[in-house]
Amino acid sequence: MLKNDLLLRTLRGEQTERTPVWMMRQAGRYLPEYIAIRNKYSFFERCQTPELACEITIQPVDIVGVDAAILFSDILVVPQAMGLEVQLIESKGPVLPDPVKTAADLNRVRVPDVNETLGYVFDAIKLIKQELNNRVPLIGFAGAPWTLLCYMVQGKGSKTFDEAKAFCYTQPALAHQLLQMITDTTIAYLKAQVAAGADTVQLFDSWGGLLSKQDFETISLPYIKQIVNALKDETLVIIFAKGAWYSLQEMAATGAAGLGIDWCIEPQMARSFAGDNITLQGNFDPAKLLSPVPVIETEVKKMLKAFGNTKHVANLGHGILPNVPVAHAKAFVDTVKNYDWND
Amino acid sequence: MLKNDLLLRTLRGEQTERTPVWMMRQAGRYLPEYIAIRNKYSFFERCQTPELACEITIQPVDIVGVDAAILFSDILVVPQAMGLEVQLIESKGPVLPDPVKTAADLNRVRVPDVNETLGYVFDAIKLIKQELNNRVPLIGFAGAPWTLLCYMVQGKGSKTFDEAKAFCYTQPALAHQLLQMITDTTIAYLKAQVAAGADTVQLFDSWGGLLSKQDFETISLPYIKQIVNALKDETLVIIFAKGAWYSLQEMAATGAAGLGIDWCIEPQMARSFAGDNITLQGNFDPAKLLSPVPVIETEVKKMLKAFGNTKHVANLGHGILPNVPVAHAKAFVDTVKNYDWND
Repeated sequence: MLKNDLLLRTLRGEQTERTPVWMMRQAGRYLPEYIAIRNKYSFFERCQTPELACEITIQPVDIVGVDAAILFSDILVVPQAMGLEVQLIESKGPVLPDPVKTAADLNRVRVPDVNETLGYVFDAIKLIKQELNNRVPLIGFAGAPWTLLCYMVQGKGSKTFDEAKAFCYTQPALAHQLLQMITDTTIAYLKAQVAAGADTVQLFDSWGGLLSKQDFETISLPYIKQIVNALKDETLVIIFAKGAWYSLQEMAATGAAGLGIDWCIEPQMARSFAGDNITLQGNFDPAKLLSPVPVIETEVKKMLKAFGNTKHVANLGHGILPNVPVAHAKAFVDTVKNYDWND
Repeated sequence: MLKNDLLLRTLRGEQTERTPVWMMRQAGRYLPEYIAIRNKYSFFERCQTPELACEITIQPVDIVGVDAAILFSDILVVPQAMGLEVQLIESKGPVLPDPVKTAADLNRVRVPDVNETLGYVFDAIKLIKQELNNRVPLIGFAGAPWTLLCYMVQGKGSKTFDEAKAFCYTQPALAHQLLQMITDTTIAYLKAQVAAGADTVQLFDSWGGLLSKQDFETISLPYIKQIVNALKDETLVIIFAKGAWYSLQEMAATGAAGLGIDWCIEPQMARSFAGDNITLQGNFDPAKLLSPVPVIETEVKKMLKAFGNTKHVANLGHGILPNVPVAHAKAFVDTVKNYDWND
């Protein structure tokens, strides 16, 4: 049915005619067409209005030619649905004015009916699928429970998320209760995304790499595992735990179809940790897209060669930066699409 | 001569009666005695007045009982000495209002006479050595060239230092010229610190881990190597490249005496990468000092066991956080000092 199902076949481990490519945050601020919409509507208007979310989601498919669309939304819609106020003011970063600090604060948090609270996401997915008209697959997503806890406890972005960590270290029972509530919500949320039409889903553990291996495997991984387990018979799941290279083996054992990796681990080493049975996704340094185009081309080819021609989805190692010229993003995508393995 | 030379003997690879311990940023904001001085004097007054720098440097030796003092200063005194304006306003982070962006900007940067521009540092070291009166060794330090370039080009702190990276990717010849100037300055600076009395020196590559292995070994490591090479016959050099676990083997080959590691790599794995001939320093998660004291004690013991009883300097995996209670810092230090290897 899908005209371009390279991403899905690669995630299933099949040999494909070429490497599929998309970019994290591809529906974002480097695109003038996105900025034009951003200047007219607030973040929540953009993500709660299916027509706007749809237009933004499809922009990079039309403009940059990626092999997959990823839903335009934010991981913080889940804490919002769980009862916390979330302010998303671009240039300022997210703010949760009443974060969770104590057992009493947890009373304000609930496992919501996702259809009641996040119905606009599923409506957007349905519309996007219709507008995509089977050109490329649609990726749904959610934040991993540890990363969402970071914001729900710290109340804002942080380099260290030390208050979120301190919450886990000093009130572990409470922390695990909150993590379980996020997990239950996320499972329902992702199942509904799949029911609405998402072809695959990615879990973003953006702050996984702030934890030691021991803490990652106590605080983050068990909940990722639950989510993968609940979803894997319905869809292909990609885990992206930025910086958590030390647990690639354990993440590969969850039953996920793909593992995102960042540029701070070499493809060969990631493969040796993750084993041969899983698809790897990544890992171009987003800042390297600021290089001259010929440098981008050379470096992308090096990356493709290092990953090899199976079980690899070309992507950045983190979100595309707002100051990347569109032509550079296109050079990234085109180099992957035109790569000749016989060269 | 030194009454407590545990750190130096451990860095030389000798078996010692117990593991030495100090903490990065131990002369810092978690100490009320430091805050009292900070409230009276600006950052540059504190670091340019030998009596103040001396008092601040010795505070954690007296109050927390660490096995080494580290000079109170900042890595950005070097860019300042090289001709760039540096503003250090606490709570705001560093600002360099006229960063280096072009070849013309490089004309404003010079390799200075360190005695003329940084004499106050050497005066402070002499005074500290006198006041320490051989109780513990004094650690001198400098920023690694890549980390200093980050600030000199980006002009302020950043999560990604993408402008600094773009400078290296788009103007590599200029970047290497600047890196060499920083290197030449740093060699003279550290040699003068040693001449003034520093017993060992640490190179801080705080942003090393933002680079891929390939970039780290092109942009950062060659200059670290030059510095270690120039210093290693005069003193023991510790390299701390935060996050750059992927190049531990290459850093161990520089001739450094010690390698700092952060908490995102397990001691056994760091040892397997670094080999058996170098001392490892680290790697307690600074946020874990926000745990209850019994948890700190258990976790510190686990860390000591994992590193083993030779070639290990106990430390944090990054600087101590301002919100750590002094009693918790003491618990960290005391647990190391009282650890019984027969337990």
